Parts: sequence; structure tokens; C-alpha cells
Amino acid sequence: MLDVAIIGGGPAGLTAGLYATRGGLKAVTMFERGMPGGQIMNSSEIENYPGVPTVMSGMDMMAVWPEQCSRFGLKHEMITVERISLNNDGTFKIHKEDGTNEDAFSVIVGTGSTPRRAGFKNEDKFFGRGVSTCATCDGFFYKNKEVTVIGGGDTALEEAIYLSTICSKVYLVHRRDNFRAAPSTVERVFKNDKIEVLLNSRPDEVFGDDMGVSGIHISTPNGIRTLNTTGVFIFVGNDINNAVLKQADGSFLCNLNESGEVIVDLNMRTNIKGLYATGDMRLDAPKQVVCAAGDGAAAAIDAISYFMEHKN
Amino acid sequence: MLDVAIIGGGPAGLTAGLYATRGGLKAVTMFERGMPGGQIMNSSEIENYPGVPTVMSGMDMMAVWPEQCSRFGLKHEMITVERISLNNDGTFKIHKEDGTNEDAFSVIVGTGSTPRRAGFKNEDKFFGRGVSTCATCDGFFYKNKEVTVIGGGDTALEEAIYLSTICSKVYLVHRRDNFRAAPSTVERVFKNDKIEVLLNSRPDEVFGDDMGVSGIHISTPNGIRTLNTTGVFIFVGNDINNAVLKQADGSFLCNLNESGEVIVDLNMRTNIKGLYATGDMRLDAPKQVVCAAGDGAAAAIDAISYFMEHKN
Repeated sequence: MLDVAIIGGGPAGLTAGLYATRGGLKAVTMFERGMPGGQIMNSSEIENYPGVPTVMSGMDMMAVWPEQCSRFGLKHEMITVERISLNNDGTFKIHKEDGTNEDAFSVIVGTGSTPRRAGFKNEDKFFGRGVSTCATCDGFFYKNKEVTVIGGGDTALEEAIYLSTICSKVYLVHRRDNFRAAPSTVERVFKNDKIEVLLNSRPDEVFGDDMGVSGIHISTPNGIRTLNTTGVFIFVGNDINNAVLKQADGSFLCNLNESGEVIVDLNMRTNIKGLYATGDMRLDAPKQVVCAAGDGAAAAIDAISYFMEHKN
Repeated sequence: MLDVAIIGGGPAGLTAGLYATRGGLKAVTMFERGMPGGQIMNSSEIENYPGVPTVMSGMDMMAVWPEQCSRFGLKHEMITVERISLNNDGTFKIHKEDGTNEDAFSVIVGTGSTPRRAGFKNEDKFFGRGVSTCATCDGFFYKNKEVTVIGGGDTALEEAIYLSTICSKVYLVHRRDNFRAAPSTVERVFKNDKIEVLLNSRPDEVFGDDMGVSGIHISTPNGIRTLNTTGVFIFVGNDINNAVLKQADGSFLCNLNESGEVIVDLNMRTNIKGLYATGDMRLDAPKQVVCAAGDGAAAAIDAISYFMEHKN
């Protein structure tokens, strides 16, 4: 039986592994099918992880994490976990995609979230090189430049307002004729001199070169309009990767909110004892590497106490 | 008027400054009388800040933070803030020790906590070089070695149990004849083969050399006993540095718990709009650099939203 099973190998899972093993737990396995590092690996530039002052790619920044986090005995099993279930004695069962399973005394889940794509041409090709889904992360790279925002919900509008304080101009492109956002937010958008709203409009294609995006073609009611913005921010929804918590009967192992985010306390505890949720999948996640890493440490520290109290 | 005033220059305050300024806020000042970096600056070794794989001193690790966090316009005012008060319009007043004051639209407090000293000879001299107040931070450096724990409350006993999974032996030294801790915890201590309890005993003096601690003299009912442990962990209480929140009438600006920790939500919001608490001073703080930094980022991101909503 594992002392702690960690599901997900992003900053949260890696840090949880570092803290759980360095804190004396012996049987700790991180389940991550791919290369550890998480969503930030797709980012071409990161400069806001404190303590790493050099601007570098997400992949370069994360390169040192797996060795550091595995130094104290963390094991990495390269397999997808399909489901976590609760055993009768309060321990957990980890159901793996190959049909085998493993028991764990506690589980720290950090499977992240997946921002939805808008579905225009070259979107994936330029993702992380001009196409972004995070204004906090990437907005500053477009300081005093023009950017395009795609979306019409609360997040899109709030992020457009956020970007307007950094960028010289924000084009806000929405496919419908009105916004599905809080009236006060909509009012702030229309009152904002730096935001130009393009309603009934859809992005067709981003274009660019080896340096990244140089512009985007938009279908508008008046024909194609080309916006020569080097930054394109997409806010058309976010899927929480909570599938591992889904039970055979369709219910979830622990409490989620209406957006599918896992409800946690300050120690990243869910409502099920011994089960933790960390990083971008949890309620109110700031969606930053340093925050996900902090979550992983907090969860592991609590999981160690839980282990000491009940297992020793 | 400041957009955000940051009180404290540890990992939480520095990261809050990085995120607030990089997020487009113009007038952001961090108030910290001394050198920024926080309590970790006293630590001789840190190896669990993810992304910084080299084992180094706290001072060396923090050396790059001030420049990185100030790169986007964060100002540093080297003065002690005595008190934060609420203005009638919901903004805040920062009262400085020189008698001047400054208004701020929102405030992020990260003034930390101060572990109490036990009061034995050479305690300060060897602090960070064998004398520690954090088992999560420093326990691993004594893997398969003997350590001494000073204290008799819940924290001391829980940390002694924690250390017993890493270390070969733990001496638990307490000045009274019984422990002031939960009965189940006391029972686990007495059942633990690796913990030797010394009651009615006080530490007199640690001794060592340039390499750090080599042992400690303990006054016991049977005379002086010398424990040749290179690690001495002190858990005799922790003072939350919440003085800046104390008002002229003795009340506090926001809700605290019975230990003096500031009650916050997952966004580090206190019960007063625009006022945030971060790092070791807040409820359930894991007291780790990465967690404090995550708090600073979370608070700053929320403070930017708060600013956009109410100020623009």
C-alpha cells in the first residue's frame, strides 16, 4: 500500500512528492503518463516564478524539477490513472488504465485544467508563441502593444479589462451580439477607452512566423478584418480535469462546485479525509506555477500529519 | 494614494509586489525596514524550494528575489509600519514609525511570525546552524542522526513524532513533569521507540564549532546530561507578527483566531475588503517559502481585480 499516491506531475504533484518523501514517507508514487512539468511546459516565456530571475521557456524552467523532487525517494509511474475510489476502511484505490490497481493511504490529486480552444486556424501551432490562455502569465509581454481577446463571458471581459491597463489597445472579439457577463463588468468594458469591441465576429486564423504571431483574421459582419496584434488571448472556457474523481455511478468522490472545481480548505483538504486537491483544479486556483507548488507543499505536509496520526 | 501597500519584505511580500506591478498596477510600495528576504535568510541550508535544486543558504537563495520582484516597478520603502487603519471611504491608512502616513487602496500584509526562543546559552549563536524551529525545513538534514527537541505542547510532540520517522533517535526535553498536549498525541510519543522523553529538564547550553552544533547540555533531575546531537529543534511557541493590525483602541483591524493568526480565504482575503494576509501570519500557514510566495501571488491577483472593479 502506498503512503501517498500523487495523481499528476505538474508543479503541484512534483512539489507534493518532494515534501512527502523529504518528510519521511517511504512509499510515495506520482502517476503521470507524460513528461512531468505540467501545463507551463507549453509556455514560451516565464518570468514570474520568484527565485528564477532569468526569463526562460516553461520547459527550460521545469527541467530541473523532476530530479530535485525525486531526490528523496519519490517514484514516478508513467501511466494514466482512470479513477480513484474509496475503500471500506477509508483508504483509496487507484485504478490504472492497464486494468490494475493499487491501494493508497492518502491521495493528492493535481491533474490541472484545460483551457478550451476557440477553434481557429493555426491556434495550436502558435500556442505559447503569441496565443495564450493566461493574461496574468503573459499580459506583461505585450506591454504598450495591441492584443486581441477572444470570448464573451465574465473571464474574457475581466481579462480584457486587466490587459487594458498593460497594453496600448485591446480588441475584444465575441461571436454573439451581446456578452454573457455581469452587467457591471459589461459596462466597464464599454466605458474603457482602450477596449474596442467586435461583436458577431469570429477568429478565422492567426498568422505569423518563427518569432510567433503577427496578426489574426477576424470574420466580422462587415467582412474580414485583420488585426495586427502579436498577442491573442483566448477565454472561451476552462475544463477542470476532474475525471479521476468520477465514480462508476457518475457521482464524484468529493465535493465540487458548479464549475467542476474541487472544494478545498487552506490545507488543500477535500471533504474526504486523506484526499487532497491541488493546483489549477481546485477552487479559486490562481493558476500560477508558484501557487500550484505551494498547494502541493501544503497538501503533503497535511498528508504527513494524517499519516502519523492514523498509521503509526 | 498607493494602489497597493505591501507590509513586509519576505517571500510573500516580494511575490505580491512582483505580481501587482507586473499586473499593471502603478503605485505599489513594499514597506520593509531591513533587507528583503524574510525569516528564511537565517537558514543555513534550503533544498526544498522547487526549481532551485542547488542546496544553498537562505540568504543566497533569496539574493535574486528583490531585483526580480522589483523589475516591474515595485518600490521599497525602508521604514517600519506601525499600524494600518481603515479610512471612512474603505481605503487604508499606513502609519509609519516616523509619524507620517500614506493612504492605500488595498493592503497586503505579510509580516510573518517569530518562533520563541527557549533561552539557553548559545541559542542565537547557533541559530540556523544546528538550532532550528522548523522540522519540515530542517529535519531531513538529520536523517539517521540523533536530534533533540525542546518543548512540551502539541507542536513539540507532533514535530518529535515527525522527526522520529527521519532521525535515528529523538530526545524530547520538557521543563515540566507532564505535557500540555492532546492525550492521543502524548500516548503516541510514549509508545514511540525512537523518542526518549526527558521531563523536568531544561536546556542549559548548546556547544559546537564552526561547522555548527555538536551537542547540548541539559539540566535533569539527576544532574547535567550531555546529548551529542547535532540538531536541536525548539518548539516553545510562535508569536504572530500582527502588531500592524492592532488599532488605537486595542482591537484588531480584521478577524484573527485565538492564536493571533489572521483568518483568510483561499484568495488570502481577510474579512475587510481590500485587506489581505499572506505567509506565516495567516491561518493554517504551512510556513514554507514556496507557500508564502504562492500566497503573495494569490493576494496580488485578487487585489488587482479589486482595484479594477472599484477604482477604474
